[in-house]
Amino acid sequence: MKVGIIGSGQLGWMTILEGRKLLNEYYVLDEIAGPAARISDRYFPVESYRSFVEKCDVITYEFEHVNGRALQYASKSGKLMPGLEPIELKRERILEKEYLRDHGYPVAEFEVAADAGEAKRIASRFGRAVIKSSRGGYDGKGQFFVNRSNLSSTEIEIRDRFVVEEMIDFDSEASIIASRGIDGSFRAHKPSFNLNLRGMLFYNSAPFDDCGMGSIASSVMESLNYVGVMGIEFFIRDGKAIINEIAPRVHNTGHHTLRGSSISQFEQHLRAITGLPIPEPELYTPSGVLNMIGIEMQKRLELEILAVPGTSIYWYGKKGIRKRRKVGHVNLTAGTITALRKKTEELSRIVYPDGPEEFI
Amino acid sequence: MKVGIIGSGQLGWMTILEGRKLLNEYYVLDEIAGPAARISDRYFPVESYRSFVEKCDVITYEFEHVNGRALQYASKSGKLMPGLEPIELKRERILEKEYLRDHGYPVAEFEVAADAGEAKRIASRFGRAVIKSSRGGYDGKGQFFVNRSNLSSTEIEIRDRFVVEEMIDFDSEASIIASRGIDGSFRAHKPSFNLNLRGMLFYNSAPFDDCGMGSIASSVMESLNYVGVMGIEFFIRDGKAIINEIAPRVHNTGHHTLRGSSISQFEQHLRAITGLPIPEPELYTPSGVLNMIGIEMQKRLELEILAVPGTSIYWYGKKGIRKRRKVGHVNLTAGTITALRKKTEELSRIVYPDGPEEFI
Repeated sequence: MKVGIIGSGQLGWMTILEGRKLLNEYYVLDEIAGPAARISDRYFPVESYRSFVEKCDVITYEFEHVNGRALQYASKSGKLMPGLEPIELKRERILEKEYLRDHGYPVAEFEVAADAGEAKRIASRFGRAVIKSSRGGYDGKGQFFVNRSNLSSTEIEIRDRFVVEEMIDFDSEASIIASRGIDGSFRAHKPSFNLNLRGMLFYNSAPFDDCGMGSIASSVMESLNYVGVMGIEFFIRDGKAIINEIAPRVHNTGHHTLRGSSISQFEQHLRAITGLPIPEPELYTPSGVLNMIGIEMQKRLELEILAVPGTSIYWYGKKGIRKRRKVGHVNLTAGTITALRKKTEELSRIVYPDGPEEFI
Repeated sequence: MKVGIIGSGQLGWMTILEGRKLLNEYYVLDEIAGPAARISDRYFPVESYRSFVEKCDVITYEFEHVNGRALQYASKSGKLMPGLEPIELKRERILEKEYLRDHGYPVAEFEVAADAGEAKRIASRFGRAVIKSSRGGYDGKGQFFVNRSNLSSTEIEIRDRFVVEEMIDFDSEASIIASRGIDGSFRAHKPSFNLNLRGMLFYNSAPFDDCGMGSIASSVMESLNYVGVMGIEFFIRDGKAIINEIAPRVHNTGHHTLRGSSISQFEQHLRAITGLPIPEPELYTPSGVLNMIGIEMQKRLELEILAVPGTSIYWYGKKGIRKRRKVGHVNLTAGTITALRKKTEELSRIVYPDGPEEFI
């Protein structure tokens, strides 16, 4: 099949890497030719989206902040998988929150504000809160963590509407990579524990306790009549899962599935959207990821990382490295979760010898 | 690094598939642009081998029957890994057999014959024998199985010198995928049991008992000062391993390492030849391969294969499908070796509903 991917970042890149063995061709559409374009069968500049849509048999998106006209056109063609609704929810945080709340899923309390003043008044009522831009947010962009003491001094610059969320006092953050086939079959990879730094995933490790994530994922995907892979991030408090956000696509917290799993999230997504059977993923061994953010790759670093047993490197080959930009990741496996955590700490010292603060 | 691959068949194709995540570019040289050329960063027609060699940092070969001048030129440049000696042994069966025998490795008894008459006389002494062409043989090409009753009627057409080997009455065939780093470190994937049909691998399954294969591999590779992955095929008789042949490259019997292993033979080979640390491969779960030989791929077949849990398809995308041509393979994993064998039989009935005989 001719599989179209809107967006050419690392998520599309890994989708093609993992999908090369399948019987597909991969066409990529984007505004600039990112990593996925480099290994695609054909790159389409964004203005040629009509021809792109016509040439593909099925079209997916690797990311939510991609060209809206291309998405619309792909959706009208009937080829977009998962459809337009999930990505519209994702592109507009207010819609996402309302959808989840109105369908009865556990989410943090929130209110919508029209301007910064109103946002601050709501935040002040919550005590500790996150003020988020309704549009364009990912990796902690457009988010402000406030509490009663810093509220008045925090400068909030958002051009759009605001979502003000009560800050959840969580025990940990976690996520699940779930998948749903065209026939409605539901599968899920084992959940992972995630450590975020300033809104960006720093490292994660699987398996992690389910805490109800599986059944929430199954229900959300069914209610959206979703086809493909979805990543859902949660706060875990007292063993219960509260949805933080959904991502209607392959997800950074699912990169550990590239190693130590019977199938990666990327291949699972491709199988789902092309109508192939999706298997129940097996996690063979504890597996995790350390993100490489804003760093330069060097031979010495590569050698040091790979000298640690059970590691492998995915280097995205992005042009232009800057602070808070994800440029690669390290996969890690180990015999036990404890050994995995220890290895992650060791690797973190190798990748960020002076700590990650200046990069993230 | 710029990694050059001489040969553009499925072995090079999977090497690039598995190597894409590493920090390399892949240049491919061949007489015709096969599957590997399609996904390479650059394809060089064979006549431009000088420019190919000059542009690469390290050069490997995916197969032994590739252009000799290119190999020579790459070797002279000092970039060829593993070097010229292993592939020269492989290209000339007499040299391989003599090398192994003279170094004291267990091999079947053999003699060299200059013509068909002499070959038949030697074969008759052995009773049951295999008459093999010294050059150009793989996948059972140029091999004649003879015994006292069919010897006189067998027509042997070989243009070259002959190796006549005593036929080993083996209990099973097996192989090991071993790897050696630039620093001399030795690693090995778990051996596999192999079922060959008319000289071609039909299916295999790992793990299999070591039977001494590991130490033989380690010794052979050390004596050749080998760098990279080597596949060694064995006959197993009374629990002891007798070398059938060596392949100085990634090997069809190592394709199961693409699934259920901590690292594939392809990534292991690339790590070794680019001077990266090579890890001890872990086999997480019983894993095997069913070769797809001479068949056409169809959506219906793809769906049927993938409906069996634990399967994935590698379809090489070759142009021109014919009898005895390897066109793809199915990877299979299962919880136990017994379950794996059962699954392999089930898949064999799906892929070859009327049996494999007309294809192999």
